[in-house]
Amino acid sequence: MAAERMVVIGGDAAGMSAASRARRLRGPEELEIVAFERGRFSSFSACGIPYWVGGEVGARDDLIARSPEEHRERGIDLRMRTEVTELDVAGGRVRVVERDGGTGQSAGGRDDGGRWVGYDHLVLATGARPVRPPLPGIDAEGVHGVQTLDDGEALITALESAEDRPGAGAPGEPGKREGRRRAVVVGAGYIGVEMAEAFVNRGYQVTVVDKGEQPMSTLDADMGELVYEAMCEMGIETVRGATVTEILTDEHGRARGVATEDAEYPADVVVLGLGVRPETELARAAGLPLGESGGLLTDLAMRVRGQENIWAGGDCAEVLNLVSGRTQHVPLGTHANKHGQIIGSNIGGDYATFPGVVGTAVSKVCDLEIARTGLLERQATAVGLRFVSVVIESTTRAGYYPGTKPMRVKMIAERRSGRLLGLQIVGRENAGKRVDIAAVALHTGLTVEQMTALDLGYAPPFSPVWDPVLVAARKASAALRAA
Amino acid sequence: MAAERMVVIGGDAAGMSAASRARRLRGPEELEIVAFERGRFSSFSACGIPYWVGGEVGARDDLIARSPEEHRERGIDLRMRTEVTELDVAGGRVRVVERDGGTGQSAGGRDDGGRWVGYDHLVLATGARPVRPPLPGIDAEGVHGVQTLDDGEALITALESAEDRPGAGAPGEPGKREGRRRAVVVGAGYIGVEMAEAFVNRGYQVTVVDKGEQPMSTLDADMGELVYEAMCEMGIETVRGATVTEILTDEHGRARGVATEDAEYPADVVVLGLGVRPETELARAAGLPLGESGGLLTDLAMRVRGQENIWAGGDCAEVLNLVSGRTQHVPLGTHANKHGQIIGSNIGGDYATFPGVVGTAVSKVCDLEIARTGLLERQATAVGLRFVSVVIESTTRAGYYPGTKPMRVKMIAERRSGRLLGLQIVGRENAGKRVDIAAVALHTGLTVEQMTALDLGYAPPFSPVWDPVLVAARKASAALRAA
Repeated sequence: MAAERMVVIGGDAAGMSAASRARRLRGPEELEIVAFERGRFSSFSACGIPYWVGGEVGARDDLIARSPEEHRERGIDLRMRTEVTELDVAGGRVRVVERDGGTGQSAGGRDDGGRWVGYDHLVLATGARPVRPPLPGIDAEGVHGVQTLDDGEALITALESAEDRPGAGAPGEPGKREGRRRAVVVGAGYIGVEMAEAFVNRGYQVTVVDKGEQPMSTLDADMGELVYEAMCEMGIETVRGATVTEILTDEHGRARGVATEDAEYPADVVVLGLGVRPETELARAAGLPLGESGGLLTDLAMRVRGQENIWAGGDCAEVLNLVSGRTQHVPLGTHANKHGQIIGSNIGGDYATFPGVVGTAVSKVCDLEIARTGLLERQATAVGLRFVSVVIESTTRAGYYPGTKPMRVKMIAERRSGRLLGLQIVGRENAGKRVDIAAVALHTGLTVEQMTALDLGYAPPFSPVWDPVLVAARKASAALRAA
Repeated sequence: MAAERMVVIGGDAAGMSAASRARRLRGPEELEIVAFERGRFSSFSACGIPYWVGGEVGARDDLIARSPEEHRERGIDLRMRTEVTELDVAGGRVRVVERDGGTGQSAGGRDDGGRWVGYDHLVLATGARPVRPPLPGIDAEGVHGVQTLDDGEALITALESAEDRPGAGAPGEPGKREGRRRAVVVGAGYIGVEMAEAFVNRGYQVTVVDKGEQPMSTLDADMGELVYEAMCEMGIETVRGATVTEILTDEHGRARGVATEDAEYPADVVVLGLGVRPETELARAAGLPLGESGGLLTDLAMRVRGQENIWAGGDCAEVLNLVSGRTQHVPLGTHANKHGQIIGSNIGGDYATFPGVVGTAVSKVCDLEIARTGLLERQATAVGLRFVSVVIESTTRAGYYPGTKPMRVKMIAERRSGRLLGLQIVGRENAGKRVDIAAVALHTGLTVEQMTALDLGYAPPFSPVWDPVLVAARKASAALRAA
């Protein structure tokens, strides 16, 4: 029997990274590691689901970084289809219930009351749950989420079976508009636009319905407008400022469309892409500290605030935004992996901290790339910052180089200090990852004037002689002088 | 008559940027701006020449950012084919000689002794000249440099005329090896590999001969080895450790190949890609301060050291490397443009400085991308630094995403401080520009441990969940702890 037991709740990125890292640092004689996952899959890439649906990723298992068996071979006792139903902080234990016998089979087994498992170190990595508004018809057949591999599999199975149906219309025949199958995506954030691309790639006629004034509310409206225009040009019907009031169903109870206050949009399939919220009911019931978004609050070592031996990371936690000075919920696999590493290092006896995020995100819809880091104008205003913003047009490569594409960059800089506050990019191929330049600048507090001198990689296939980020920095610097 | 006169020597990036910026800040009644260019072209992209030769850029004029006429329309008195032959610092004047009547025509006009032109502000932007070793045959027909648009035009004219010749072999027919025309490129640095790509794209059988142990001596040998292997796989004959002793010529005095100490390489065309040296003979004769490479030494405002009203920028100047603490010669258009902006700002009554470079460069040969920033191992050792280095393998996108490509990253970090010292990348499409992340980190003195927490853009089409730069930072951080 090991000297200590580490219990992990949640078998995805944060939890299993923590488990793996702790295992590398401490052997089984020292540390027993037990992980509970209520679903059927471990360590999968939720962010890859749109590309699986779109047919760019061929197989479900390509999205699985490490299977339960692989984790077990590495000395992590990972229990699938096993749910933690209660957390007893004072007693240092969790109540565990096996679903379907804990085998991953849909055996229809009855839940028992569960058993208690004690811990010396507890890792909360319970992830997030998709937003699912209580609309009429929301639970109808043909309405899909895309948060888990189960969701993805259900969606693909439904699509394939419908596409095989005689007279069902022909995906992939763009000339035959009447015959094309129709998808409605509710929500035009990252998941929404990525799912729009997936259905375009599957040959569907796509409608995206969003309540915001522009798609991508993670951008300022002027940049979101570019996304709107580009999506319309791609043939994606993009409906703004529209609140969905009902999922319309047919006589068999299947979804046949989406209704807003003003209109109806027929659909063969409806996908919900409304974002996610931290899954923290266990933690809330146990009285652990939660932030404004409902995510767990931690210290810099990813320890839950006020707790000695409870840690939290990934989509169930809030993180400090280094630019706004506030904690926020940023559900991204890249953060979850970092959190897991840090938690595992600390439990394993090493030392690591997570300083915070700067709000970087990148996405694409077909060949349009969308990226942002730092604060939007409204976010800067909300935390009391005064700023200038500039927008510039440039290209991804030298203007004369074949394959050069347009890109627009918006830069926000603080008055007086001149410090960079945020950057947004909307452009075509090769535009998006330039956001990393600004991300590092935000981590290090560079002024836009300092940024004008950055020694960035230049050659005609890679950049204009003034990289677009430098062009934006020069304009922002001039705007500050004029302000 | 204007109150002051600004004289610019050199009509390319640095000089004309300085002129343009000064003109925007001060009107013609305040500042007269005269620029002298001894060649036939102004403001051209020398870095674009390989792509013009390779056929990716269709026309010479695509490489010209601004013609002499456009400069003159903006109030800059740009005199083409006009050479400055002497600089009288004490007298505040330069001696100017018009070549071919200063018209750009090859009229065979005789040089006169020139006339003196006084200046209140002088900008030295004389650029660089290609290295041209005094080998037998070096001046033969069929031996080409690729430094200026004139060079490029001469090369393309020669290639087109030879390719049209009956029985000259058929470029672009890879099956017919004997019939393919052969190019030998001397030198395997940036220009050399880019010219190799250009000739591959033109359908030539290409040999690159280099005296170094690996191509790309701007990389460490282990990373250069990857470039060597990739070039061989592309069918580019790559000869290492070979010193060219002679350009072989035929009975008509035309180049027919290249001889090294050990072998002969037949060629229909020979291109010299041996790099460039600062063009500073005028400055040297005038007693201005030059660095080890022969480039002009300036202060942070780009004023020549010890001078009140003489400025220098672009390929004729040395710049401070912020990582090594030493000045060096870095002939890159992106720096030249920055220098010009800074000089023009300062002469124009505004204020700007150039803090220095971190040694960033990016290039490609066919689909292989090559990038570096900071110091190589030998450069770090040469300035007294002790360090660890690590190499990692990763991919440009999520492993499961279509089009993901391998990339290798080498990272060098200082012992004790943990500070990043350098990064090198060799990989396929989308690998190279990641060097910018490290460039910003070098500007700001980040440690590799700090880099492990960078909030970089992540989505499957853009990056693995751990960006390759983060993977390298984690490994470097671990190596430091173990050191």
